[in-house]
Amino acid sequence: MLKPPVAIVMGSQSDWPTMRLAAETLEALEIEYEARIVSAHRTPERLVEFATNARAEGFKIIIAGAGGAAHLPGMIAAMTVLPVFGVPVRSKALNGLDSLYSIVQMPGGVPVGTLAIGEPGAINAALLAASILALNDDELADRLDAHRERQTAAVPQFPSDNE
Amino acid sequence: MLKPPVAIVMGSQSDWPTMRLAAETLEALEIEYEARIVSAHRTPERLVEFATNARAEGFKIIIAGAGGAAHLPGMIAAMTVLPVFGVPVRSKALNGLDSLYSIVQMPGGVPVGTLAIGEPGAINAALLAASILALNDDELADRLDAHRERQTAAVPQFPSDNE
Amino acid sequence: MLKPPVAIVMGSQSDWPTMRLAAETLEALEIEYEARIVSAHRTPERLVEFATNARAEGFKIIIAGAGGAAHLPGMIAAMTVLPVFGVPVRSKALNGLDSLYSIVQMPGGVPVGTLAIGEPGAINAALLAASILALNDDELADRLDAHRERQTAAVPQFPSDNE
Amino acid sequence: MLKPPVAIVMGSQSDWPTMRLAAETLEALEIEYEARIVSAHRTPERLVEFATNARAEGFKIIIAGAGGAAHLPGMIAAMTVLPVFGVPVRSKALNGLDSLYSIVQMPGGVPVGTLAIGEPGAINAALLAASILALNDDELADRLDAHRERQTAAVPQFPSDNE
Amino acid sequence: MLKPPVAIVMGSQSDWPTMRLAAETLEALEIEYEARIVSAHRTPERLVEFATNARAEGFKIIIAGAGGAAHLPGMIAAMTVLPVFGVPVRSKALNGLDSLYSIVQMPGGVPVGTLAIGEPGAINAALLAASILALNDDELADRLDAHRERQTAAVPQFPSDNE
Amino acid sequence: MLKPPVAIVMGSQSDWPTMRLAAETLEALEIEYEARIVSAHRTPERLVEFATNARAEGFKIIIAGAGGAAHLPGMIAAMTVLPVFGVPVRSKALNGLDSLYSIVQMPGGVPVGTLAIGEPGAINAALLAASILALNDDELADRLDAHRERQTAAVPQFPSDNE
Amino acid sequence: MLKPPVAIVMGSQSDWPTMRLAAETLEALEIEYEARIVSAHRTPERLVEFATNARAEGFKIIIAGAGGAAHLPGMIAAMTVLPVFGVPVRSKALNGLDSLYSIVQMPGGVPVGTLAIGEPGAINAALLAASILALNDDELADRLDAHRERQTAAVPQFPSDNE
Amino acid sequence: MLKPPVAIVMGSQSDWPTMRLAAETLEALEIEYEARIVSAHRTPERLVEFATNARAEGFKIIIAGAGGAAHLPGMIAAMTVLPVFGVPVRSKALNGLDSLYSIVQMPGGVPVGTLAIGEPGAINAALLAASILALNDDELADRLDAHRERQTAAVPQFPSDNE
Repeated sequence: MLKPPVAIVMGSQSDWPTMRLAAETLEALEIEYEARIVSAHRTPERLVEFATNARAEGFKIIIAGAGGAAHLPGMIAAMTVLPVFGVPVRSKALNGLDSLYSIVQMPGGVPVGTLAIGEPGAINAALLAASILALNDDELADRLDAHRERQTAAVPQFPSDNE
Repeated sequence: MLKPPVAIVMGSQSDWPTMRLAAETLEALEIEYEARIVSAHRTPERLVEFATNARAEGFKIIIAGAGGAAHLPGMIAAMTVLPVFGVPVRSKALNGLDSLYSIVQMPGGVPVGTLAIGEPGAINAALLAASILALNDDELADRLDAHRERQTAAVPQFPSDNE
Repeated sequence: MLKPPVAIVMGSQSDWPTMRLAAETLEALEIEYEARIVSAHRTPERLVEFATNARAEGFKIIIAGAGGAAHLPGMIAAMTVLPVFGVPVRSKALNGLDSLYSIVQMPGGVPVGTLAIGEPGAINAALLAASILALNDDELADRLDAHRERQTAAVPQFPSDNE
Repeated sequence: MLKPPVAIVMGSQSDWPTMRLAAETLEALEIEYEARIVSAHRTPERLVEFATNARAEGFKIIIAGAGGAAHLPGMIAAMTVLPVFGVPVRSKALNGLDSLYSIVQMPGGVPVGTLAIGEPGAINAALLAASILALNDDELADRLDAHRERQTAAVPQFPSDNE
Repeated sequence: MLKPPVAIVMGSQSDWPTMRLAAETLEALEIEYEARIVSAHRTPERLVEFATNARAEGFKIIIAGAGGAAHLPGMIAAMTVLPVFGVPVRSKALNGLDSLYSIVQMPGGVPVGTLAIGEPGAINAALLAASILALNDDELADRLDAHRERQTAAVPQFPSDNE
Repeated sequence: MLKPPVAIVMGSQSDWPTMRLAAETLEALEIEYEARIVSAHRTPERLVEFATNARAEGFKIIIAGAGGAAHLPGMIAAMTVLPVFGVPVRSKALNGLDSLYSIVQMPGGVPVGTLAIGEPGAINAALLAASILALNDDELADRLDAHRERQTAAVPQFPSDNE
Repeated sequence: MLKPPVAIVMGSQSDWPTMRLAAETLEALEIEYEARIVSAHRTPERLVEFATNARAEGFKIIIAGAGGAAHLPGMIAAMTVLPVFGVPVRSKALNGLDSLYSIVQMPGGVPVGTLAIGEPGAINAALLAASILALNDDELADRLDAHRERQTAAVPQFPSDNE
Repeated sequence: MLKPPVAIVMGSQSDWPTMRLAAETLEALEIEYEARIVSAHRTPERLVEFATNARAEGFKIIIAGAGGAAHLPGMIAAMTVLPVFGVPVRSKALNGLDSLYSIVQMPGGVPVGTLAIGEPGAINAALLAASILALNDDELADRLDAHRERQTAAVPQFPSDNE
C-alpha cells in the first residue's frame, strides 16, 4: 500500500512537541502524512532504510526535524532526491543555533530547504509541503488559498490590551 | 505566453555571481527559468507585481536571493502560495549571517525554504526546485538521478596532493 | 481628516507589550499617535496600502516594531520617504538578534533608524520621534527638555539595598 | 553665524572613508552639513562642547559614526535632545559587530537611531536626515522623491554577466 | 577630606545586585570604597564631574559597571588617567554580550581593564583593585594572600551529591 | 595502589550535576573511575600535581569538565600525554559558548578532544573513554556493543503525545 | 589484510590541505594510517560501508574532517563504536563555526571528540590518536614523549623581531 | 637583581607583532619591562616557574597576550596575586573571539583585566600598567598626562581626504 504524500520524521520523541505543529498544519489542510522517529545517530540503519526507500514507498515530500548536531535532514537528503525540508529544533545550550547551522549549511549538491528554528519552522515546513502538492492538486490549492485568507483576516487592525 | 516553471529573482545585480549558479544548475538539468532583478527595497512595486502575478503567469517555483536585511524571499512568500526558496547572499560586514537570519526566521504562516549562505545555497535552490518538478516529470526525475550519480561518481576515493 | 503625526505599527498583537511603551512615551509627551497592526507577511496588502498612503494621510513619522525575520520596518521604508524607526522585538529562539539584523542591515538607499532590542527600543523610538517633531514645535521641545531633566533628576546618587 | 542643519561627526580620521558617503549623499540632495572629528575617548572635552552646544549653534540633526567600543553617538545623544543617528563603522577584529552593539543597545531614555554597519549605514544616515528635513521643506521633499525615483529606475530588469 | 582609594560606580540602581559583590569583596579585604550611581547617558554632567575630579579627590582606582550599550567605563577612562576596570552587567536581550563588547573593545589610547560578565566580574574587579593597592601596602598584600589561601583551601577534593 | 583507568575531574562542585552523568555512564559500563575537583584557577598546585602524576599513578584517560574561561582540560593536556577529553559546562551569561571556545580551540601540539556543551557532553566523554578502553578489552567491547544496541532499541518508531 | 590503526577520512578533496596535517603528524610519530575521501552527503553508501566495516577491517581510531553542515564525523560515530575524532574544517561564509557546531554538539549516546577549527585541529586529532595508541605501545609512548619534549624545547625564551 | 616593573609574556612568537605594541608603548613612557615567551600549553613548567616567582623577582604587573584557547593570562593569575592584564590576540578562524572569551570569562576569585582584541589591546595593557605605576610615581604620572595631552592634540578637527 502506498504511503501518504508527506513523511514527518524527527530525531527523537523530544522533538514531537515542535514537530506536532507540522502534523496539525497538514491535518488542517487535509493532507495525509506519516510521523516517524528516525534518529540519524541512534538508529542509523533505520535512517538508511527510510531514506533509500522513501521514494519507492510513495512519499513525495519529507519534513525532518532535529536539534543540536542535527544531521537527520541532511543525511536523508543524501539518500533520496525527494524534496527534504528541515526544521531546526531548539536546543538547550545554543537555543537552536547549532541545529540551524547543522541543517542549513549543506554543501552544494544535496539540498535541504530549511525553515525557522522551532514551532514556526514546523508550521512552515507543512505549508511549504502543501504549496508543492498544490502545484498539481487544484482542490488543495483552493484550501491553501483559503487558509491564507483566513490567516490574513485573523490579523486584527489594532493592538489590544486584553491579551 | 506562459512563463517557465522556475523564476530566479535577486535583489541586485551584485547577487548575480552567486545566483548564476542556480541558473547554471537548472540549465544542466534542462529546466527552463527566467532570471529577474527585483529589489524589495528599491523596486517595491516591481516586487508586488511580480509576486502577486507569479502564479497566474505560470511560474511554479520561485528562487530568491538577497543579502543583508534580505526581505525579498519573505515578501514574495507573503504574496504568493507558490513555493519560495531563499538564498542568503554573503554580505560585507556580517558574511551573510544577517542574510540568513532575515530569510530563515519567518513567522509561522508564511514559509521560505532556506538554503546555505552563498554559492552552495544557489546550487541547492536549483536542485530543490528540480526535485519538486521531478515529482511529476519522470524524464526530469531520470536526469536528476543521473546528476546525483555523476556527483557521487565524481568523488575521488583518495585525497590528492595535486590540487 | 488628517492623521496624527506618529504611526506606531507592529507585525502582530504579540508585539504590543513591547510597542505599548512607545505609545506610553508619546502620551507622556502629549504627542498624538495611531497604533496599528500591519503584518508584512500575513497582510501584505495592508502593508502596501499603509506605507504608500502614510505621507498623504498626514503621518510624519513611522515607528515599526517586529520580531524574527522582521521585514516590516524595511518594507515600509521602501514605500515611503517618511522617516521610519524600527524596534527589534525579542524573539523566542534568538532573543531578538534575528530581529535586529533584519531591521538594521538595510542596503544603502532605504534607511531605517533602528533602536535597541525590546522595551528600551520602543521607548527610544518614541523619544526620537519627539526630538524630530520638536525641531518645529517649541512647546514640545520644552516638554522634551523637561522630560530629560526629570529623567536626570530621577537617578539616585547612591545605590540602595532596598530594591 | 548659524550652523548648517546637519553635523557629521566621527571618532577618527579612519572613519572618514565610511562617513564620506554620508557627506556625498547630503551633497547630492543639496543639504548643507559640517563634518567634524570628535573622539569620545581621545577628545572628551570636544565631545562635551560639541554635544551641549549643538542645538544652540543651529544644528538640527547629528550623524555620528564610530567603530569598536563606539561611544560617540550615544554620548552625544546623552547631551542633546537633537535627533542623533549612529553609523557603526566596521572594526578590525569583530567586523563592526562591536560597533553595532555599542551604538544600538542604548538604554530607554536616550535614543540613537542606528543604521547598518559601514557604507550603507552612512548613506542611509544621510537619507534619514533628509527625510526629516523634508518634513518642513517641500523642495527638499521633491528632491528626495526624485532621488528615490532615480534609484528605482536604476535597478535593471535582468542580471547581466558583464559586471 | 580625601576620598577612599576605590570608587565603585554603576550606570543604574539595577546594576547594584551585581556590583554589590565588588563592594562586599572590598569589605572582606578591609579596603574602603565609595559606591555611586553615575549614568553616562542620563547624568552626563555627573559623569564629567566625577571622572575629571576623581584623581584630585583622592580616588586611586575606579570600578565601573554598566549594561547594554555600556559607555560608562570607557567614558570615565577618557577623562582620567586613573586605572579603570569595567564590569559588563548582564543585559536582558543579549545576556551581557553587548555590555562586554561595549566595554572591552576600547580603541588604543584609552584603556579599560575588563572583567567577566556579571557577578564574577564584579568580584574580580575588586580583587584586581586589591592587587594593585597591595603593591604598596604590605598588610593588604598579606590579607590578599590569606584570601587566596582560604579560597584554595575551600575547594573540596571530591564532588558531593549533597548540594 | 594503581588508580582506576578513568579520572573525572572538574573545576568546581557546581560542575558535578553535569559531570555526574559521565560517572553514571561509566558505572553502567562497569568502568572504574575516580572523580576529583581540581580547579585550574583556585588550586593550581593541585592541577600540576594531578596532571603531572596522572600517568604514573595509572590513569589512562582523563575527562575534564569546566565552565566559563575553562582552562582545566587544556592545562591538564599541557602536562600529560594521556588522552584528555573536555566537557564544556553551561555558563550563566554565555550558556557555555565561552566554555566551548576555551576548551576546543587548543593550539596545534596539545590536544583536547571536546564534547558537546553540558549533559550530552558528559555522557559522551564517558562513552568515548569506553570506546578507547574497549580497544584492548573484549568484554568491555561487548558491553559497549550491548549498550549501543539497547540505545538503538529504545528509540520508539512513532512519536507519542503522552510525554 | 588488516588496515592500519588510524583512518583519516574527509568529506571532500578540498579538506585535504587541512587534513594533510593530521597525516604528517602521524607520519612524524611513525603511525600508519589510511587517508580516504568519504562524503556523507555525496557518497552515503561509501559512508555506510566504511563506518560499519571499520572495526572489522582493523581500524582502531577514526579521524574525520568536514566543513559546513559537517555530518561526516557524527554519522561515522553513529555506525561504529571505534573512537571518532572530528576536525571542523574552515568554511567560506561562517569560518568554520558551522562546522564546529555540526560536529561537537552531538547528542548523548554517540560521541565525537572534537578538535579545534582548521589546521591545529588536524594536528591535534593525530596527537590524540597517538596518545590512545601509546596506552598500549611503549615505543610509541616514548616517541610521543620525545615529540612533546622537542615541542617544548622549540619554544624560544624571548620574542624576536626577525620573523 | 630585581626585575623591571612590567613583564610582557606571550604564548608564542606569533603573538609578538601584536604584543610589540605593548612594549613600544611602555618604552614611550620610559617604563622598563621584560618580554618573554611563556606557552601555557607547550611550556607549562616555564609557566609555573614564571608565575610563582614573578612577585619575588620584583615584577609588579604582568601583561599576557595569547590567542585561541588563550589560557596564559588566567593561569598566571591563578599563581600570583600580582595584577595581570590579558590581551586577546586575533586568531585565524574566530578572529579573536575565542581568545577574548578564554581570557575575560574568569571565575570569581582569580581576576584578569582584559583589553581589546589585538593591537589596541596591547597598547592599552601598557597604558593601564602605566596608570598603576603612576599612582606612586609622580614623574611617570606627568609623562602619562603629557602622553594623553599629545594624544588629544593629535586628533584633527576635520576629516581629510588625503589619507
